Amino acid sequence: MKITFLPQNITWEANTGETILQAAVKAGVNIDGNCAGSGTCGKCKVKVLEGDVSQCDDHHHKLTEDEIEAGYRLACCHQVTDGMVIEMPESETTASRKKKLIRLPEGFVPKAAVTKQCIEVPAASLRNQNSDEARIKGAFPAEDLYFPLETLLKLPDITKNSEEITITLRDGEVIDAESGNTERENYGVAVDIGTTTVVIMLWNVVSGEMIDIFAATNPQGAYGADVISRITYVMEQEENLDTIQKTIIDCINKAVSAFAEREGIKTSNIYQMTVVGNTTMSHIFLGVNPAQLALAPFTPVFTAAVDTAAKDLKLTICPEAQVHVSANIAGHVGSDITAGIITTDLMECDKGHLFIDIGTNGEIVLTGNGRAVACSTAAGPAFEGSSIKQGMRAARGAIERVDILDSGVEIATIGDAQPIGICGSGIIDAVGEMIRVGIVDKSGRLLSREKLVKKGLSENILRHVKEGEKANDFVLYFSEDGKSDVVITQKDVREVQLAKAAISAGITIMMKEIGVKEDQLAKISIAGAFGNYIRNTSAIHIGLLPKIEEEKIHSLGNSAGIGASMILLSCDSKEEAEKVAREIEHIELAARSDFQDQYMMAMMF
Amino acid sequence: MKITFLPQNITWEANTGETILQAAVKAGVNIDGNCAGSGTCGKCKVKVLEGDVSQCDDHHHKLTEDEIEAGYRLACCHQVTDGMVIEMPESETTASRKKKLIRLPEGFVPKAAVTKQCIEVPAASLRNQNSDEARIKGAFPAEDLYFPLETLLKLPDITKNSEEITITLRDGEVIDAESGNTERENYGVAVDIGTTTVVIMLWNVVSGEMIDIFAATNPQGAYGADVISRITYVMEQEENLDTIQKTIIDCINKAVSAFAEREGIKTSNIYQMTVVGNTTMSHIFLGVNPAQLALAPFTPVFTAAVDTAAKDLKLTICPEAQVHVSANIAGHVGSDITAGIITTDLMECDKGHLFIDIGTNGEIVLTGNGRAVACSTAAGPAFEGSSIKQGMRAARGAIERVDILDSGVEIATIGDAQPIGICGSGIIDAVGEMIRVGIVDKSGRLLSREKLVKKGLSENILRHVKEGEKANDFVLYFSEDGKSDVVITQKDVREVQLAKAAISAGITIMMKEIGVKEDQLAKISIAGAFGNYIRNTSAIHIGLLPKIEEEKIHSLGNSAGIGASMILLSCDSKEEAEKVAREIEHIELAARSDFQDQYMMAMMF
Repeated sequence: MKITFLPQNITWEANTGETILQAAVKAGVNIDGNCAGSGTCGKCKVKVLEGDVSQCDDHHHKLTEDEIEAGYRLACCHQVTDGMVIEMPESETTASRKKKLIRLPEGFVPKAAVTKQCIEVPAASLRNQNSDEARIKGAFPAEDLYFPLETLLKLPDITKNSEEITITLRDGEVIDAESGNTERENYGVAVDIGTTTVVIMLWNVVSGEMIDIFAATNPQGAYGADVISRITYVMEQEENLDTIQKTIIDCINKAVSAFAEREGIKTSNIYQMTVVGNTTMSHIFLGVNPAQLALAPFTPVFTAAVDTAAKDLKLTICPEAQVHVSANIAGHVGSDITAGIITTDLMECDKGHLFIDIGTNGEIVLTGNGRAVACSTAAGPAFEGSSIKQGMRAARGAIERVDILDSGVEIATIGDAQPIGICGSGIIDAVGEMIRVGIVDKSGRLLSREKLVKKGLSENILRHVKEGEKANDFVLYFSEDGKSDVVITQKDVREVQLAKAAISAGITIMMKEIGVKEDQLAKISIAGAFGNYIRNTSAIHIGLLPKIEEEKIHSLGNSAGIGASMILLSCDSKEEAEKVAREIEHIELAARSDFQDQYMMAMMF
Repeated sequence: MKITFLPQNITWEANTGETILQAAVKAGVNIDGNCAGSGTCGKCKVKVLEGDVSQCDDHHHKLTEDEIEAGYRLACCHQVTDGMVIEMPESETTASRKKKLIRLPEGFVPKAAVTKQCIEVPAASLRNQNSDEARIKGAFPAEDLYFPLETLLKLPDITKNSEEITITLRDGEVIDAESGNTERENYGVAVDIGTTTVVIMLWNVVSGEMIDIFAATNPQGAYGADVISRITYVMEQEENLDTIQKTIIDCINKAVSAFAEREGIKTSNIYQMTVVGNTTMSHIFLGVNPAQLALAPFTPVFTAAVDTAAKDLKLTICPEAQVHVSANIAGHVGSDITAGIITTDLMECDKGHLFIDIGTNGEIVLTGNGRAVACSTAAGPAFEGSSIKQGMRAARGAIERVDILDSGVEIATIGDAQPIGICGSGIIDAVGEMIRVGIVDKSGRLLSREKLVKKGLSENILRHVKEGEKANDFVLYFSEDGKSDVVITQKDVREVQLAKAAISAGITIMMKEIGVKEDQLAKISIAGAFGNYIRNTSAIHIGLLPKIEEEKIHSLGNSAGIGASMILLSCDSKEEAEKVAREIEHIELAARSDFQDQYMMAMMF
């Protein structure tokens, strides 16, 4: 059953009964999606150009009438028919949103490690029998150039066809040689390997401009949603490490091919790659066994930066390109944190600067009083929407903001779409507001209608309190037919409570460790897209962040991606990142006798 | 048809009609031999332990009655029968002869580039969560160690199994890590790739002792006997370069396996390899296209030293081992000459020191008056026995020395065996003696009996002058039945004349170039085994060497192999070799208008 995907023009032989999404995954075509095919996120929308579109079940309420009319369907729900031609939705919007999150700090000055230079090479003659290599060296009398084997292999053809050649230099090493003048074709790729999402950025190293960006779901998800399940997979059989490493290498190679096609560049003109990610992602990317990271004492094999040649990892860029895996800080504080830190002035601040990355693991770094400490704390997936009844990733239709006013409950969704669930920032906002107006008490209990009435809450608010399965729910959105309401349950509040307690306890211990009090905190930097979306006051209300003036809280955007790009573009940033990773002291919370106490205390709102 | 080779215990399915030698080549078993299967050199003697030995033709006169009785046969003449078991002859003798030619200069001090150190690594715990890498680094507080990927991949297993580990360091790079104490297992391999013979030496880098030596016919011979025919082969089809490169890599890997088996070492404990050879051999070894070397202006792709990782060349030693291809001087003056020079005091001598390597190409280096110049000159194969009627390589039964006395002609053969031909040193000696006693005149003519009678030569000498096919021959050895006489023909003398003229003209031009006269020459160093065997006075008589006192002539032995070993064992020697290659000026004889004149003049004896 033939199916073709455009614009990639990839044709695949699908099996009867398969959905478009299943076929796409097998064909290696990336389709967005957050709900794992349950038809709830609506992100896998594709346009059926040819083939049967009669199928149109109830999941299609994620599509407008106009969209359905135009042939749009959800790839996760729609079955393949023979000869089907699918057009992928413009990923333009996603890419441009991702692109906005990558902004180099003001005053950042690129300092390229790789340079290209076009030179004239005299032809050989009986009077100048110097080797090809020696005649090229002649153009650089002051430098001591070295030709690695890969470049020597290319020289005969290049010097035969052209007297004008361009050589590519890294630390005196001639990593490439080409006919003609290609000085401007000097590219680098920065990679941020998240457990869930991989962001791959193409930069022109000469101009310091981002040329293109590619974001994909981490294909390792097929072997487990979180790092522990992926490590477990690796431990099952010896060949699994190779398998899972290959998926991420393939993903990056696919991005590189897409860049080449979309931007009209040669992949062999990509001379550098910088990779950041959590410590497990760093290990798997290099094919280093991460098993130790899943068992106490959670010792990584390496933390320092690793440089290796692209050819050794089968990356389809210049074979001699240096692939730089940035330094990790500890087993559960990875190079994504290192990269994030260099985008800030954290290390220069001596007054108390808190850096925090909120996810399944909360990574916390605190500087002050001449020290820099870091820890990671297991927050669980609540802030990623996973353990929340109607939680979802930050995608179209997710409630991202909640205001509880006397006049009622006001919500905002991503893409101003019809609400279909609630994402991390929405959960924090909802619970924060529920605490602020008193719907949830300090112990985390959703109060009964009676108690709320006594508190004098308006009927406009009270009507949102509804009896749920075991306790009351708080309805954020009433659907027309009552079947698709979006609610916060008592259990959801408990999940938030556990998650925020883990992070809050971590912060408290870091502050105790270096002797910084809450009122001494000068700045909080929030890493990741998350920081851009959460309402700071709500984060403070639920006790996720210390009490601090709002203007002292800064969202860093995709700080890991920005940091990776800085390391790619500047030797100084690269050096700084290694220094950061070396200087930060890691504190293992599990080894602290005071952690459990702090955790219990932090449970209260 | 099954055949088994001992002691390697390699079994091979041979075809009917194949000789033992043919089967051995296909099975990858190395059997010595110089006559390419013509049954004349007798070097491919093997013992048939099982199988039909009834076949015993006339070639077997290379074997004694006792040997035939004991089951010895010539592998090149004896056909395989099913179930045959062959025992290879003790190559002990060959190896020990080769070993004698490798003697490090007095006062040579090894200075290893690779060192091993056994350390205690503390176990990881919640109080010491440092990565495996960081805990190892802890043992070297003063050093800035770097772990390449290959080593990181090994760490988890090693740190798990042992707290005592041994790390291998090169320039701060940790190229290997092993459980337990393996400090003494630190090996290196020096390789001298001759066009005809490959010599591979195993050294213990710690003790500076040679452990083993392996000499084999260069398997590239299958694609051409000389460099030009091999380059032609490479130019025929694109994949031929890979094919011919693979033969030499395989040959070295075979030696490495043999070392491991014979000496009980691990191939992964070989951390360095140094390779020397002529410029074409250097190119082919690295897989760099040598085509340019066959065409004017004979420009190599590279001359500087090349360092590459063993894994990139598929050499079966430590994957991160550095393979160092020493610096060549020019297209026809290779790194075998560079290596040879560092075994001498050539570069320090300012009085006129001539270094000469005599083969198909004569490479000549001359220092004096503050300069160092080199050239190569096409001598042809006469001195290797190839264009000489009864010429052969220096092997058992070759006449290597000739004395023409009043009492008659006295000869000596290699191995004191029955004479079967004449090798290079024997040819020079024979012609030198024939000139000294006047059998050959200055123009190179073999005088008639009448003229010799007039000159008063004794009948003991005269009886050796016999009528040949076109002119007189000079008989060196009369066989009993008259069928296997060994003679020097008029044409042989002409071949010697041409060969010596090329070398002599080269020497003259070098001397002119830097202004050193014959009586100013302080020293002549003769590279290669050849120098050990030629009689200096004869070489002077035929005009191959300038007239100089005999004590000023020095034989260097296998100077290429010695130099390669020095480069392997000492960073200082490695540096010196690069300096030598850089400082020597190459003179292209083909570009000199005076070369033809000199060549014609040098033709006279």
